Amino acid sequence: MAPIRLAIVGLGKIARDQHLGAIEATDGIDLVAVASRNAKLDNIACFHEIGDLLASDIAIDAVSLCTPPQGRFEQAKAALDAGKHVMLEKPPGATLSEVFALAEMAKAKGLSLFSTWHSRAAAAVEPARALIAKRKIKSVSVEWKEDVRHWHPGQAWIWEPGGLGVFDPGINALSIVTRIMPESFHLVGSELTFPANRAAPIAASLSFETASGIPVGAEFDWRQTGPQTWDIRIETEEGSVVLTHGGSRLIVDGVAQIVEEDREYRNIYRDFVALVNNGASDTDYSPLVHVADAFMLGRRIQTEAFED
Amino acid sequence: MAPIRLAIVGLGKIARDQHLGAIEATDGIDLVAVASRNAKLDNIACFHEIGDLLASDIAIDAVSLCTPPQGRFEQAKAALDAGKHVMLEKPPGATLSEVFALAEMAKAKGLSLFSTWHSRAAAAVEPARALIAKRKIKSVSVEWKEDVRHWHPGQAWIWEPGGLGVFDPGINALSIVTRIMPESFHLVGSELTFPANRAAPIAASLSFETASGIPVGAEFDWRQTGPQTWDIRIETEEGSVVLTHGGSRLIVDGVAQIVEEDREYRNIYRDFVALVNNGASDTDYSPLVHVADAFMLGRRIQTEAFED
Repeated sequence: MAPIRLAIVGLGKIARDQHLGAIEATDGIDLVAVASRNAKLDNIACFHEIGDLLASDIAIDAVSLCTPPQGRFEQAKAALDAGKHVMLEKPPGATLSEVFALAEMAKAKGLSLFSTWHSRAAAAVEPARALIAKRKIKSVSVEWKEDVRHWHPGQAWIWEPGGLGVFDPGINALSIVTRIMPESFHLVGSELTFPANRAAPIAASLSFETASGIPVGAEFDWRQTGPQTWDIRIETEEGSVVLTHGGSRLIVDGVAQIVEEDREYRNIYRDFVALVNNGASDTDYSPLVHVADAFMLGRRIQTEAFED
Repeated sequence: MAPIRLAIVGLGKIARDQHLGAIEATDGIDLVAVASRNAKLDNIACFHEIGDLLASDIAIDAVSLCTPPQGRFEQAKAALDAGKHVMLEKPPGATLSEVFALAEMAKAKGLSLFSTWHSRAAAAVEPARALIAKRKIKSVSVEWKEDVRHWHPGQAWIWEPGGLGVFDPGINALSIVTRIMPESFHLVGSELTFPANRAAPIAASLSFETASGIPVGAEFDWRQTGPQTWDIRIETEEGSVVLTHGGSRLIVDGVAQIVEEDREYRNIYRDFVALVNNGASDTDYSPLVHVADAFMLGRRIQTEAFED
């Protein structure tokens, strides 16, 4: 099969840190164009807007959107309308309605749409999933605490409505938990802490229950300095299963396991190539559904102003 | 076909004002039991909890849940687990995750689940839908303004997280607009006004766009005294189509139309009977999806404290 000719839209931090290297390392897909308002790449056709790219003579098969979620619907729709397959960086959009609509459009046009969750592609996720499928789960607790100043320096959009605040990292944890749990769960309590001067939360405390009543707790916090915490702890009747380092390491009953090298973005591009070549889509929006629920059911707590 | 033997869970204002009379007036369904913490009906088997009802000797086929949305998941799940069809008063639940899970459970068990939107059953809705399907829409504007003190006197739950505040009536408007519009739409801006002492909004200003770019605006306000406003105005290239009085009256190009007598709840019980008898479900949650989006994308404005 001929390699997929890919264009990237949005050449910010995540595109440069992760996407470019992952595309380079993945068989079956080649970067042939970029659309970015502010940046260019050498030796690649570059455009200011996706509209210019789609109107150009550059032949592409697929588009990978690495722009912030606000405004991504129009870009994705333009790509689908032009007959291109689409891959979405997480979160897939600013609203559920728009991502549900994109899934229907892609289906109607027979195009592949991949709503990615890079943390799901972390090395310990599938081993953990297989392991707990054989155990009886008692409880799940998530601790996802990091320093926003380090990870999102000066990113104003992330504090705006649609930017999700601490749910921008927290949705990564939810993308893992929704993947590994053998049954669905829903929110029963939500406390969101907003800085006085910001439109998005800096911390969230969430209580979920599975359909059969198993408690799932999650603490997200953007104020952690020093060591960072991205842990998911599953207590089972047979002992504990713990994912650490964002899903890249696995500790079972206190014993660190050997898992593959972590290569999240290479895995998602490998999966995108497979989806396109098989005419399939992957549009599981359940992590974003939980985030929307957390806002809808959220009790607001105000805290001191946050300055970068 | 034998009439459906129905139990009502929750015997509050909406059950007494609407459900009891509608059931009485509907062929093919009989009320045989009630579960309510605080209230009883004469000559009907009464229980405190749905669990007591389901464990009793009273034979029922279906359950209609008229309780507040918080906590309704467990009731609906218990009914489905016991093999009963379920009808949900709006809003269908406190979270999207739980209602999506209920839809999957009902499907897996081959039971009917009807997530009702009583305003969709208003007399002018289907005529309006048929009319605008033949026209070219330019814009839609919703004005849904009522006096919360009159309609929800002392209902503390409606101001709590999950109670939805002004979206409790506003979701009725959204249930009409999602029904009559020929294409989907998604939120692009949301301003939510919260009283200083309440956890739910008293007003909301929403901007949506359809997939093809048609603007849909909505203004919800719970502070309107005097005449109440529940209007939806659709401007088309061929003239205006206006629904007033919550969807019960229709004005086309300035001329009031004759529509059927309004009988929202009788219509939804008629539809529930048809769904059960046909082994079908109706689980369109799009109005609640828009509400969750409005919270997720909402910019908060604080206003003066509200006292009943």
